[in-house]
Amino acid sequence: MHTLMEDLRHIVGSAHVYTDGDLTAWEQDWRKRSHGKALAVVRPAGTDEVAQVVKACAAFREANPDSGISIVPQGGNTGLVVGATPDESGRQIVLSLQRMNSVRSLDADNLTMTVEAGCLLQNLQEHAEAADFLFPLSMASEGSCTIGGNLGSNAGGTQVLRYGNTRELCLGLEVVTAQGELWHGLTGLRKDNTGYDLRDLFIGAEGTLGVITAATLKLYPLPAAQLTAWAAVPSLEHAVTLLGLAHRHLGAGLTGFETMGQFALSLVSKHFPHLPVPLHSDSPFCVLLENSDRESEAHARARFEHLLETALNQGCVTDAVVAGNLSQARQLWHIRESIPLAQVAEGLNIKHDISIPVSRLADFVQTTDSLLQKFIPGVRLVNFGHLGDGNLHYNVQAPEGVNAADFLRSQEENVNRLVFDSVAEFKGSISAEHGIGGLKVDTLQRYKSPVALEMMRAIKRALDPLNLMNPGRVIRV
Amino acid sequence: MHTLMEDLRHIVGSAHVYTDGDLTAWEQDWRKRSHGKALAVVRPAGTDEVAQVVKACAAFREANPDSGISIVPQGGNTGLVVGATPDESGRQIVLSLQRMNSVRSLDADNLTMTVEAGCLLQNLQEHAEAADFLFPLSMASEGSCTIGGNLGSNAGGTQVLRYGNTRELCLGLEVVTAQGELWHGLTGLRKDNTGYDLRDLFIGAEGTLGVITAATLKLYPLPAAQLTAWAAVPSLEHAVTLLGLAHRHLGAGLTGFETMGQFALSLVSKHFPHLPVPLHSDSPFCVLLENSDRESEAHARARFEHLLETALNQGCVTDAVVAGNLSQARQLWHIRESIPLAQVAEGLNIKHDISIPVSRLADFVQTTDSLLQKFIPGVRLVNFGHLGDGNLHYNVQAPEGVNAADFLRSQEENVNRLVFDSVAEFKGSISAEHGIGGLKVDTLQRYKSPVALEMMRAIKRALDPLNLMNPGRVIRV
Repeated sequence: MHTLMEDLRHIVGSAHVYTDGDLTAWEQDWRKRSHGKALAVVRPAGTDEVAQVVKACAAFREANPDSGISIVPQGGNTGLVVGATPDESGRQIVLSLQRMNSVRSLDADNLTMTVEAGCLLQNLQEHAEAADFLFPLSMASEGSCTIGGNLGSNAGGTQVLRYGNTRELCLGLEVVTAQGELWHGLTGLRKDNTGYDLRDLFIGAEGTLGVITAATLKLYPLPAAQLTAWAAVPSLEHAVTLLGLAHRHLGAGLTGFETMGQFALSLVSKHFPHLPVPLHSDSPFCVLLENSDRESEAHARARFEHLLETALNQGCVTDAVVAGNLSQARQLWHIRESIPLAQVAEGLNIKHDISIPVSRLADFVQTTDSLLQKFIPGVRLVNFGHLGDGNLHYNVQAPEGVNAADFLRSQEENVNRLVFDSVAEFKGSISAEHGIGGLKVDTLQRYKSPVALEMMRAIKRALDPLNLMNPGRVIRV
Repeated sequence: MHTLMEDLRHIVGSAHVYTDGDLTAWEQDWRKRSHGKALAVVRPAGTDEVAQVVKACAAFREANPDSGISIVPQGGNTGLVVGATPDESGRQIVLSLQRMNSVRSLDADNLTMTVEAGCLLQNLQEHAEAADFLFPLSMASEGSCTIGGNLGSNAGGTQVLRYGNTRELCLGLEVVTAQGELWHGLTGLRKDNTGYDLRDLFIGAEGTLGVITAATLKLYPLPAAQLTAWAAVPSLEHAVTLLGLAHRHLGAGLTGFETMGQFALSLVSKHFPHLPVPLHSDSPFCVLLENSDRESEAHARARFEHLLETALNQGCVTDAVVAGNLSQARQLWHIRESIPLAQVAEGLNIKHDISIPVSRLADFVQTTDSLLQKFIPGVRLVNFGHLGDGNLHYNVQAPEGVNAADFLRSQEENVNRLVFDSVAEFKGSISAEHGIGGLKVDTLQRYKSPVALEMMRAIKRALDPLNLMNPGRVIRV
């Protein structure tokens, strides 16, 4: 172990290898579900150093098969499934990409930018905007998460409806393989059919196959105007009908479609009384719609009003408002984004990040709600999410008056089982946008096809035969 | 061999195993570059039969390692890189998916349809349209190619600019693995982060990892109007500037951006004199633009005119026409699509399906043109393609008066080397949308990173250890 540590210090410089002091920022996951113990936190300055670090660890592991040395790549450490923090063995190197935070280039004619893995998402949004472009990936953690983490977990967010997940926004990757080799895959091409799709294999692999060190990302022209509307709908079925109408009326202009249940909104009202929540008191669900227009604000408003009028006439919307200005629009989004915080204020709950085919969403929620009510009378459901993508954050809160911590301890496993079984019944996914990490690695065994799991194991063994990269996450070998 | 043939007849029925008579339709590739010899053409009726066929072949191969038995999956046999026809050994089974041509379901609320691999692309377009939806994949061969082939080769086409390649249009797959196991991956989910991206690994693998038997595909609302314009531009640089303007003005409405060089258009004029080609005689390049509008034809026309006016004022367009009606629009597209036929009429030529970052395209063409002129004085360049995707069909025609067949025989290798070396210099791709197949499998060794090639080999060995599936295509192991 001593020689390995010396090698690492030699590669990145002693100042960038942390072994002492408080390493909580790297050892504890975002949701504080796990606090591991790292052998060291290593912070390389560039791709070559990453490659040397991986090579050194691989050589040590090969020479000392029982050492248990392995590598956990880490970006902003904002992941929600315990996929980027070390276990408790004290044998894992946290490979932090934080220092690799340069934008290498922006190619306006090609609509791309090439960036290092440690760039903060928000910095990339700002960098693109300064050049008059949109980089559309957007999520609550954007001020802290890194693009490397977004790629590793194929993060979703609020613009997936129009622009896709992180995978769809990436054209090329630079990767250090599990052998410490450098794959120069930083292409800015829209079409390239020269062999297996290695890019998409590394995206979403959560650092278990190699280390993403840089990426070439898609840019879009900035919209001329962006408007936000808030609509009350009588049911989830009606929200789905509204979604179909919105697709037809707005096409690619529809860049946001978020649905929020009445109880979720009532928690915002209760815990953040300064935030006025429109239209929710009489309506089981509200929808937040965003329309991005290439022409003008007036045009955007006319299109939005035409849509909402049609929806009101058809009865799938009972009432609606369009934000009059940017600050009203921000306030509507702020309500949506305050739901998770309102839940925290109300007490711990059991979270699910699931997706269901849009056509079956309403049926899924009705069926699962009633199964849960039967199982735990009085249970409260915080139901909100990116309906446009079929993605629900379907969270289960203790019945009123029941101690939340006790509830979590005693019921989490049962509730998960019930919800995930229902998800499987409706051909949904047990992890829509958060990934598997260590948190769901065993759960996945129950819900993923054995044939798919066996292929995943074969790929992991083929690309990382030493099981050096983030072992025990996503798939065990 | 006899027992295997008996097994195959037992599985799919004797009527669907062809061994005698003229099998040219399955044995010869589309461009007639190769005429192989199949042991048999096997035409299963459904996924279970596909699985049984693969299992039987795998078992036979395992019991008789020297038999050389292997499987070549085939759809419409319209591929351009000799990837779906058998070699000359007489030991390969052509597994034709033609009989599996049902649309299993169309889910309007979820904007998806689930279809079998043998469906003709054009039938799928029509099926979607009958339900008031757009399935945007579109290419010259759509009346003959199958969706299984499109997926296997990650086909591109004319709408990639807006909707992406086949990969981006697919949400889920059903696959028979190289072991004959069935992977039920037919999800209709927009977000599903539960492990490695197996879907995108099978897409574009050209049948070398398993057999795609069905897919769940994305649908879009039909546009309210679609307009086509034709613009003369002074140079490729100006075409690139026009592309940027079109992105900003039309956003996702820009569904086509094709560029055609003057010589390419002059061949159309020469060989199809009944087709009047607008604006080309005074202009080195013409551009065909398509604008799909969600609102109305009037709106589409106003947007188009605004764009073209701006472009004229900026000098990146010298003249332009907008088609007045559908039949004029079709005629403009027809000119574009007649270029390959005009080339055939002019005589054999050396074809390249390449892509280059859009920002470097003009420079690439200028540099490569002059290298070629120096190497073969008088050589003629047929240059056209999907500029919006950086994808050029950069074809090299013999100097006037030189025998085309002689030229091809004597120069093809040299010209390919020169063009591909230049592509590599400009960080482009030697196969933008046609794939690798058997035609470019050796060429790929020269231009793809050794690290990527080694990962591809590792994946092929891991998923198809018997090398049963389409051996010798894409990557040799």
